[in-house]
Amino acid sequence: MREVAIIGIGQTPVDEHWDKSLRELAGEAILKALQDAQREEVDALYVGNMMSGILTQQENLGALIADWAGLRYIEAVKVEAACSSGAAAVRQALMAVSSGLIDSAIAVGVEKMTDEKGTEITAALATAADADYETAHGVTFVGLNALIMQRYMYEYGWKHADFAPFSINSHLNAMTNPNARLHEIISEKDYASAKMISYPINLLDASPIGDGAAAVLIVPKDSLKPNHKPMITIAGSAAASDTVAVHDRKDPLWLKAAEISSRKAYQQAGVTPQDIDFFELHDAFSIMAVLSLEACGFADRGQGPRLGLDGIISRSGKLPIATLGGLKARGHPVGATGVYQIVESVLQLRGEAAENQLSKAQIAMTQNIGGSGSNIITHIIKREDR
Amino acid sequence: MREVAIIGIGQTPVDEHWDKSLRELAGEAILKALQDAQREEVDALYVGNMMSGILTQQENLGALIADWAGLRYIEAVKVEAACSSGAAAVRQALMAVSSGLIDSAIAVGVEKMTDEKGTEITAALATAADADYETAHGVTFVGLNALIMQRYMYEYGWKHADFAPFSINSHLNAMTNPNARLHEIISEKDYASAKMISYPINLLDASPIGDGAAAVLIVPKDSLKPNHKPMITIAGSAAASDTVAVHDRKDPLWLKAAEISSRKAYQQAGVTPQDIDFFELHDAFSIMAVLSLEACGFADRGQGPRLGLDGIISRSGKLPIATLGGLKARGHPVGATGVYQIVESVLQLRGEAAENQLSKAQIAMTQNIGGSGSNIITHIIKREDR
Repeated sequence: MREVAIIGIGQTPVDEHWDKSLRELAGEAILKALQDAQREEVDALYVGNMMSGILTQQENLGALIADWAGLRYIEAVKVEAACSSGAAAVRQALMAVSSGLIDSAIAVGVEKMTDEKGTEITAALATAADADYETAHGVTFVGLNALIMQRYMYEYGWKHADFAPFSINSHLNAMTNPNARLHEIISEKDYASAKMISYPINLLDASPIGDGAAAVLIVPKDSLKPNHKPMITIAGSAAASDTVAVHDRKDPLWLKAAEISSRKAYQQAGVTPQDIDFFELHDAFSIMAVLSLEACGFADRGQGPRLGLDGIISRSGKLPIATLGGLKARGHPVGATGVYQIVESVLQLRGEAAENQLSKAQIAMTQNIGGSGSNIITHIIKREDR
Repeated sequence: MREVAIIGIGQTPVDEHWDKSLRELAGEAILKALQDAQREEVDALYVGNMMSGILTQQENLGALIADWAGLRYIEAVKVEAACSSGAAAVRQALMAVSSGLIDSAIAVGVEKMTDEKGTEITAALATAADADYETAHGVTFVGLNALIMQRYMYEYGWKHADFAPFSINSHLNAMTNPNARLHEIISEKDYASAKMISYPINLLDASPIGDGAAAVLIVPKDSLKPNHKPMITIAGSAAASDTVAVHDRKDPLWLKAAEISSRKAYQQAGVTPQDIDFFELHDAFSIMAVLSLEACGFADRGQGPRLGLDGIISRSGKLPIATLGGLKARGHPVGATGVYQIVESVLQLRGEAAENQLSKAQIAMTQNIGGSGSNIITHIIKREDR
């Protein structure tokens, strides 16, 4: 296997981009990544996207976006793994370059959601759940996560207020991220009194949707000069799946696919959870942040909320998470999210995160979750100083 | 790059499977491929599918199908490239195994179409065209191919009847394929008098949709014993794209992406068109068969119909095509088609094609076309006798 480096990154703000089409958003992120790498060409394009067929009546995104971005004739396909489509596209780019069949690849994640009505978006998001055994009975995607959170609170005795630090941290970190969807400090009181969506998940437990695109350019590490700076490499990459229907899991409070994919990624990278400097996790709902931290070995089972209450997750804490706002406040343009996580990690590793810059950023971990834990993809990204 | 071998194949009949869901069809093909290879486990699953979100309100097919097939927890994602989604999934499996990150992978193509009304299927298929610049103006997918065929006939002086041998050949070959959708011999007279769909494409120029699934199991060649029989390897694999909108192409009568991907595949495999024993091409419409033959170097420009009229494409000809019925008569369950082509090639290479067995089958080529030529993926598959 050839080792790979990320030499270019690009992103659009996450917003309601009513003036830009899906292909325009993706093209913008791709061109920024090419400019960032000072390249004009690339051999392949992998598009992470979940809902373009349903929301914009457009499939065949690979060819569509390649052409729009001036990359006509290259290999170009779409990868879908529900909300983890972005990281799945990055992983496909990684495998393409690792295999030696492709010498440079861009993974772009893109989602265009806000042109549609809320009910249509809710229906489209529900295609990440089991159509025959969950959705058919009327449960929404938020509803499924609410059931998990209820059970978690019952099982381990936490109160709703104990989850507040996750949302407060994400909102705080997004304040100084110009690409974030929300720029609004929230307090414990705001969190406690936010509008209920599906008990116990209220508006400030849930990440906002949005339109956006993010891209990374991947090449073989050995194609770069040894003194290439900054040298950002993907040291670990793994994916695992679980049942789509939550009721099919023996233990719905344990993200088995997070455990498996993080363990594999740690092994590949030769690190342990203690070595991770920061963690861009999938805080689509505050309960998902908690379950991710536990399954990846950062907290004991049932003790995830403790990391928020003890300040460990803040930018000055031992394990900063959502350092540029996370899904909760940077926003969750579904198929793009996994690529945003990696772009943000590269910004931190390069020391280019401006006001959000962490003091220690040598080894990053990202984790993108599809469905209610049915697809989980973990990456470990390193800055190599030589 | 690790070389790869195909050690297991499976398929369901292409039919109106009203009694089987999408996951059941895919699961059946996967289990057959595992049984064929005498294995019980696999490390990753890549699902080729185009329309499940629109037609069955189900995305997240990777995890859904992995779990159903008893492969819970493995890496599993969906790949979409319009009608070439099947070959795209095979190519992703190939790259995963070639990279060394994955030691065994199944690519399964699946599509479930016939539960829906024709108008809904037509709308779903149109998502392979350009939603903003083609579909919005009312042209259907058949309509786009009809415009290409009209122009081709005008430009090179062929009559509609000159395309008849392609459909007649496919129908004849499907007669003895138990997995084919259509079992009906057709004559030149039938072809000439078939119901018009979109001039000049009539019902016997167009492939039928259907429900179906096909799967291949890919492992590193060097993981097999040297005397493993039959040793079927993927000697060439390449993908290329073109504009989605046909009007954006300088030359709409030339499949540039077929030219590029076939040339790369020939180079990788170290062969020329003359070395190909048979060609499972993408005869979604008879015009597409003609354009594919020309772009891949089997016929001079504008002379593709000659191969039909001269009998070259028949099972006893110099370049048999659609040897088990092709898209035209085996059927075109969209996202599954590219995998069916490879499964059928392996049957021929193994000498297991029963009544359809070719006398010479050492080197096969398959080509899967997405959109009206916007995504074209070519594979060259060899039987290695040692």
